[in-house]
Amino acid sequence: MAGTTVSPTPLLKDELDIVIPTIRNLDFLEMWRPFFEQYHLIIVQDGDPSKTIRVPEGFDYELYNRNDINKILGPKASCISFKDSACRCFGYMVSKKKYIYTIDDDCFVAKNPSGKDINALEQHIKNLLTPSTPFFFNTLYDPYREGADFVRGYPFSLREGAPTAVSHGLWLNIPDYDAPTQLVKPLERNTRYVDAVLTIPKGTLFPMCGMNLAFNRELIGPAMYFGLMGDGQPIGRYDDMWAGWCMKVICDHLGYGVKTGLPYIWHSKASNPFVNLKKEYKGIYWQEELIPFFQSVTLSKDCTTVQKCYIEISKQVKAKLGKVDEYFNKLADAMVTWIEAWDEQNSSGGKSADATNGPAK
Amino acid sequence: MAGTTVSPTPLLKDELDIVIPTIRNLDFLEMWRPFFEQYHLIIVQDGDPSKTIRVPEGFDYELYNRNDINKILGPKASCISFKDSACRCFGYMVSKKKYIYTIDDDCFVAKNPSGKDINALEQHIKNLLTPSTPFFFNTLYDPYREGADFVRGYPFSLREGAPTAVSHGLWLNIPDYDAPTQLVKPLERNTRYVDAVLTIPKGTLFPMCGMNLAFNRELIGPAMYFGLMGDGQPIGRYDDMWAGWCMKVICDHLGYGVKTGLPYIWHSKASNPFVNLKKEYKGIYWQEELIPFFQSVTLSKDCTTVQKCYIEISKQVKAKLGKVDEYFNKLADAMVTWIEAWDEQNSSGGKSADATNGPAK
Repeated sequence: MAGTTVSPTPLLKDELDIVIPTIRNLDFLEMWRPFFEQYHLIIVQDGDPSKTIRVPEGFDYELYNRNDINKILGPKASCISFKDSACRCFGYMVSKKKYIYTIDDDCFVAKNPSGKDINALEQHIKNLLTPSTPFFFNTLYDPYREGADFVRGYPFSLREGAPTAVSHGLWLNIPDYDAPTQLVKPLERNTRYVDAVLTIPKGTLFPMCGMNLAFNRELIGPAMYFGLMGDGQPIGRYDDMWAGWCMKVICDHLGYGVKTGLPYIWHSKASNPFVNLKKEYKGIYWQEELIPFFQSVTLSKDCTTVQKCYIEISKQVKAKLGKVDEYFNKLADAMVTWIEAWDEQNSSGGKSADATNGPAK
Repeated sequence: MAGTTVSPTPLLKDELDIVIPTIRNLDFLEMWRPFFEQYHLIIVQDGDPSKTIRVPEGFDYELYNRNDINKILGPKASCISFKDSACRCFGYMVSKKKYIYTIDDDCFVAKNPSGKDINALEQHIKNLLTPSTPFFFNTLYDPYREGADFVRGYPFSLREGAPTAVSHGLWLNIPDYDAPTQLVKPLERNTRYVDAVLTIPKGTLFPMCGMNLAFNRELIGPAMYFGLMGDGQPIGRYDDMWAGWCMKVICDHLGYGVKTGLPYIWHSKASNPFVNLKKEYKGIYWQEELIPFFQSVTLSKDCTTVQKCYIEISKQVKAKLGKVDEYFNKLADAMVTWIEAWDEQNSSGGKSADATNGPAK
């Protein structure tokens, strides 16, 4: 048996799915092999369903293309975006696991300042399995991390923390800039490794990027709808933002925490800023109304589940953002459809994607 | 002229005072000489006024002992703590400069991960001279720092930022823990250098430590009262916390930003946890009432100056915390006295400490 190495069972091996939206062969997985190979992948193929996506040997995956999505969701498939990576949220819906990690196919393994490969997934899992501190800021950042704790003046009653719903990871190399910033700073690269994880305080909104993101599907899954983007829609590149704002308002209401910081991935290639500008330009001015809207959303005590919170937000979207643009009425309807489809796919009596609508393998 | 080096004029040389509370000879300044020597120091001598504090040669300073404080403030000197480093706020009051940096005499120059001495004061000044982002969280931290910017999804209308009132620096080596944590983790040292500056979001409270702290005195000075601690008072070690909570509520109301993170200093020696426990124990349970109190303080539109805000908070302290302990009635009165003394010392027609009550030089 000399030379045989036994891989230890990775954390949450049977409780986490990795969701990858893609339009191309998944060669990027080769670099992730040591970290992903023991997990199950859910690949959501965007664009032309007749195209074959090549997945490297040895990975355990299910793959859904547009035909699969239409077949599984029927008319409710209208809530899943097409020709946009927003389609990834279909993977969240059909997963049967407690945790999700989602990553873009232009993201590679980054190195920490010591030159060691970063196991991004492991760090996300640590973030999700330790509490958050949304109610009071700790100046030494994550108090649950080794070598750290709560500092003097941190109320003892708050040191239990709150359950962590979301872990938002960052990116070295190409930063996640909008089109105007890309255009103005074409050469800017993120080289700063900030060795911190922190909780985004209750009541504070942030721009959630879907490139390198993990969450507890049981706690917050139904809020992770990436909206209507891409084909037939007036905007793109606001899918993760939309999910982030809805999710954060709901986490604040339900008492869950959201972390950001470590882990980093290596973001290899800037997307085309001219194409991005076209996708974003309506979002850029709509957003000036969206932020005050999300800052003012109130959820009543009756909103005791993520679904109820989400439906309530959809009503407020229609009531308050419908006048900004007709698009938001359509989006509000799609939010309701999403929840209906989620509940169908996830109720114990509901149709299981695996059982009755098996995807390509 | 060979061999002559001309020191460049440091940032804000004539606009910043360094305030140091102490009970001992200030040999620690030797290590800070390259960074502090061109600035003016205000030394607040705590404890026995007959003791002579030795200040290394070459520093430009004024020194106030208890006799000076009593002489300058008269009966209003009652608001300045004795036998507690809370006395440092007297230095803020008699300064005539726009900016204050305050540092403890057990804090030394730290090194960054490259092994280079950190010019803490310079980093604080950079923090204070660039805006803050209290209204929305930027996931790449300080967007005004070189190599960083606002990320996709950050509203453009908020990219001007807000004026920065406070820069809260951190500590390598001995972390700022409370007595219970010190007792439980006697060997814990902070070795993690987190290369970030971030804005504490609006509406979020944090534990402000006075060890390594800079602020814009013009913007927020009158809120930086370190309360009644030490001799004759039932608590200690909550001076900076109290100032931090009052200050943060006022900054949130007036639209100013508070930053935390870089720079680090090297905190050399843990204070005695048994002594600390005695100072802290009432604070530890009072604090459970203080945080909800500060989270619920509301300031009306009439509170247009720091002084008005502060007086309003003092009224709410009396109304709502007086029932927690009689101490808070005394503290509320001292808050009013502090503002009266501040205005006397800082009004153009008021008595100037320099002119009429010159301190020891």
